[in-house]
Amino acid sequence: MKQSLTFIPTLREVPADADVKSHQLLLRAGFIRQNTSGVYSFLPLGKKVLQKVESIIREEMEVINGVEVFMPALQQAELWQETGRWYNYGPELFRVKDRHERDFALGATHEEVITSLLRDEIKSYKKLPLTLFQIQTKFRDEKRPRFGLLRGREFIMKDAYSFHASKESLDATYEDMKQAYTNIFTRLGLNFRSVIADSGSIGGKDTHEFMVLSEIGEDTIAYSDSSNYAANIEMAEVNIQYVDSEEKQETLKKVETPEQKTIQEVAEFLETVPEKCIKTLVFKADDELIVVLSRGDHEINDIKLKKVLDAQTVEMADPLEVKELLQCEIGSLGPIKLPIGVKVLADHAVKYIVNGVCGANEKGWHYTGANPGRDFSVDEYADLRFIVEGDPSPDGMGTVKFAKGIEVGHIFKLGTTYSIPMDGTFLDENGKSQPYIMGCYGIGVSRVMAAVAEQYNDDYGFMWPNQLSPYDIHLIPVNMKDETQAQMAEELYKLLKSYRYEVLFDDRAERAGVKFADADLIGLPIRVTIGKRASEGIIELKYRQAGETVEVQKEELLEKMQAFFN
Amino acid sequence: MKQSLTFIPTLREVPADADVKSHQLLLRAGFIRQNTSGVYSFLPLGKKVLQKVESIIREEMEVINGVEVFMPALQQAELWQETGRWYNYGPELFRVKDRHERDFALGATHEEVITSLLRDEIKSYKKLPLTLFQIQTKFRDEKRPRFGLLRGREFIMKDAYSFHASKESLDATYEDMKQAYTNIFTRLGLNFRSVIADSGSIGGKDTHEFMVLSEIGEDTIAYSDSSNYAANIEMAEVNIQYVDSEEKQETLKKVETPEQKTIQEVAEFLETVPEKCIKTLVFKADDELIVVLSRGDHEINDIKLKKVLDAQTVEMADPLEVKELLQCEIGSLGPIKLPIGVKVLADHAVKYIVNGVCGANEKGWHYTGANPGRDFSVDEYADLRFIVEGDPSPDGMGTVKFAKGIEVGHIFKLGTTYSIPMDGTFLDENGKSQPYIMGCYGIGVSRVMAAVAEQYNDDYGFMWPNQLSPYDIHLIPVNMKDETQAQMAEELYKLLKSYRYEVLFDDRAERAGVKFADADLIGLPIRVTIGKRASEGIIELKYRQAGETVEVQKEELLEKMQAFFN
Repeated sequence: MKQSLTFIPTLREVPADADVKSHQLLLRAGFIRQNTSGVYSFLPLGKKVLQKVESIIREEMEVINGVEVFMPALQQAELWQETGRWYNYGPELFRVKDRHERDFALGATHEEVITSLLRDEIKSYKKLPLTLFQIQTKFRDEKRPRFGLLRGREFIMKDAYSFHASKESLDATYEDMKQAYTNIFTRLGLNFRSVIADSGSIGGKDTHEFMVLSEIGEDTIAYSDSSNYAANIEMAEVNIQYVDSEEKQETLKKVETPEQKTIQEVAEFLETVPEKCIKTLVFKADDELIVVLSRGDHEINDIKLKKVLDAQTVEMADPLEVKELLQCEIGSLGPIKLPIGVKVLADHAVKYIVNGVCGANEKGWHYTGANPGRDFSVDEYADLRFIVEGDPSPDGMGTVKFAKGIEVGHIFKLGTTYSIPMDGTFLDENGKSQPYIMGCYGIGVSRVMAAVAEQYNDDYGFMWPNQLSPYDIHLIPVNMKDETQAQMAEELYKLLKSYRYEVLFDDRAERAGVKFADADLIGLPIRVTIGKRASEGIIELKYRQAGETVEVQKEELLEKMQAFFN
Repeated sequence: MKQSLTFIPTLREVPADADVKSHQLLLRAGFIRQNTSGVYSFLPLGKKVLQKVESIIREEMEVINGVEVFMPALQQAELWQETGRWYNYGPELFRVKDRHERDFALGATHEEVITSLLRDEIKSYKKLPLTLFQIQTKFRDEKRPRFGLLRGREFIMKDAYSFHASKESLDATYEDMKQAYTNIFTRLGLNFRSVIADSGSIGGKDTHEFMVLSEIGEDTIAYSDSSNYAANIEMAEVNIQYVDSEEKQETLKKVETPEQKTIQEVAEFLETVPEKCIKTLVFKADDELIVVLSRGDHEINDIKLKKVLDAQTVEMADPLEVKELLQCEIGSLGPIKLPIGVKVLADHAVKYIVNGVCGANEKGWHYTGANPGRDFSVDEYADLRFIVEGDPSPDGMGTVKFAKGIEVGHIFKLGTTYSIPMDGTFLDENGKSQPYIMGCYGIGVSRVMAAVAEQYNDDYGFMWPNQLSPYDIHLIPVNMKDETQAQMAEELYKLLKSYRYEVLFDDRAERAGVKFADADLIGLPIRVTIGKRASEGIIELKYRQAGETVEVQKEELLEKMQAFFN
């Protein structure tokens, strides 16, 4: 492609509103432009990278017998009402009315649509299993779109759905998919981990996320320093054997803590440590207020709490409701002498506190010498806290460390979450009607592009890996007005194209400095420069990632290209 | 692809709500399913055809230096407000609000978005011309979605936009695009014509439609029986030299026509012909009521009328308004003794009526012996009527005939229709600010698929042309339980795939009759049947379009395939 004929609006300055490297460079190198918050256009270079990402995904989906389809963005509300998501998906779901005032969702995901398609067609176990996928625009009205393509409101996704007659069949496809995802992210050149995850609003049970390790990741991964274990910290189990203390139980004492607000302050004032404080929180689980205890140095994980309670929703209780329940402000809450009937849950660690400190349910007062069992009772001890660095790894091997990750893929075992409410059934081998057992599998295609961009760059611009680079070679005659250079450029352009290299030919009448700066910014793997020594038949190759520059005879060009690209 | 692993839900019965062949067969052969009115899912076979259509379009766009981009569906209302289309596009434009109550249009077309992208980036004539295209889902809330993919509310479109510094440059790209479209529709195997067209709500001047000739077309094409002339009848000029009559002018006479309502009835009653009747209509052009006359056997073309009047909108006047103006019901209107100040337009043919019949603006009365000029005056004669079969061709060669067409492509010279209101300007060679001169060019990708489907079928199903067929070869072992057949099928499947043929391998445990019926319905170019004579090494080839069947040695298979596909 001649550069004069395409549209690559490079920028010298870093755009003010772009916080992360990938976003800055995708804008600066002219790959994308923002249309409005969270909504982007892919310009020619961006579109080419997207297509390469899509091809790799498509190939790996086909290896595991995924079949491509294309479903609509306009989804009739009735389908989302069948599963209830019309009511509980919240403001992230764009909703639109047609000219007859009928309601539609703008496709945020396609579980409902695909289940409705199959339930009319697949009536027998003989036609199962089946794995369908699509690559398509999705719409989610994110509260805080940011980081460019990393969290957008309109984005491109590969979503796949599998349908099975048995759990074993789902397990097999899930493992295939895990392998396919591993292949995809490996081929994309990403530094990633697959981690145990929470299934969120999609529903379902077993689920893994694929996380690209990155400083700017919005998720925290807990991983073992000596095994393959990795999980989203939302999900990482705490698997620790606390040890009984030999400390002697003291008497419970009510003490004044006139100015101390935080756990740290209270602990210091009472000459103890946060580990010996009992943090008391009140949550609202569905409609019930629940008291939840943890150690002062731990944080309650509401996803774990929700699971233990088997609740639909769990959130911090409103301070007014708390005051009504316990006659006390938040900040001085404690588990001693609670009103009858209030359920108390505690994290396992609380059980091992001896002579703890807790609020006295009276402003400005705490207890010391508080001992669980003796001074207050707990209805249930469970794993309720977030794992912390230094905890033993949940798989029993090594110690937990944290890393930040960008979620680029997510695979779920849905089971019958969608097929039961939507009446998606087949007849099994005994002629009995059964709901489909389903899986669903997503990759954020445009987000992947940003994740690669985040990983492959230096101070001068991108350094695209060969398999994703918008073009293979940047061919640059330094001076298009020099006839020798211009002629050699045309000649090499034709030659390289005839060998099926994708060439970006900078035929612009720009200064050499501008051309080189643009080339570094765009970041194709190899720059072929035709300069003053063209008259001697000598050209220059610059390898973008290695940063090396060599002069070669033009006759050697093809050989060098083959050596590099094969 | 093994048929057991993909999703091809064929139907034996013709779906009740599908009126046209392409829609019936796309449903029956399992290529598409309707999600809701005008909204479809592309199942695996449909998606494959789509991809082939898209590849051909992409290739031809690249030949003329079109560069691919991908713009969003969510388009901020502010852009559409800049051009005014937010207010006058009407209910066809889907509108959606985000969580902050901001208004968006769902992309029906992308003139506003692309102009907004370029106006920030292309500031110099040096960077022009530029042709950008995308292949993408579009949303238009059609009043009457119908005929399956032919008129949908969510559909796939290739849209291209070109930007120029001069009219000559636009002309050149327009001609390139016309050639590219001709190549595309030729490669797609369509029987089409390019016709002169109206630019509708997109705006602009020169414009051509590409029409696939088809009985079910919603448009009528007027074409010459002896030249290349073809136009949408909306646009076909009437280029006829009417001849002065030698008939002597009679006296104007008012006659009673008590029961005669239609022109036909009046003409018969008064012993004359519709050609001698003067049809009188009242139109509302913007806010003015206008009297428009045509010959009784002609129809007024409101697009021509709108152009002659240079009006924004033209519609039939409300009967109440007509009554107020002329003190008479519609049905007895005539041009004689009209109130002062009422503008009268007439089609050229009216000028040559001698002793005509017209309404007397009094219920139950007409005039005979009416002569233009003598009995009534006309402000302007113009070409206002629809062309009819038998008229001379507007290019002066031959006679006009009519055909029905499906519009599959449309190219427009937009000029500065969008760049002026949107302030899309560049500096010309003299440093002067000029608005971009633009073109836009569309192809209905999913509609093309339906148009091909409409053209390539017989009573048994589809007969896909090679270049668009979802697979090349349908490989069918008659009995998968027969080990010789099953083994040979696997062997040939591998062989054909290794030669890069796309093979659909019917490995299902279905009866031969079901397999053959499905194969005819799906309509791949060649069926390779492995039946009883497999043990002798003999297989059967069926050429779907020719309907021929031949038996060959399996060793001849590759050679036969090469002969057919090359």
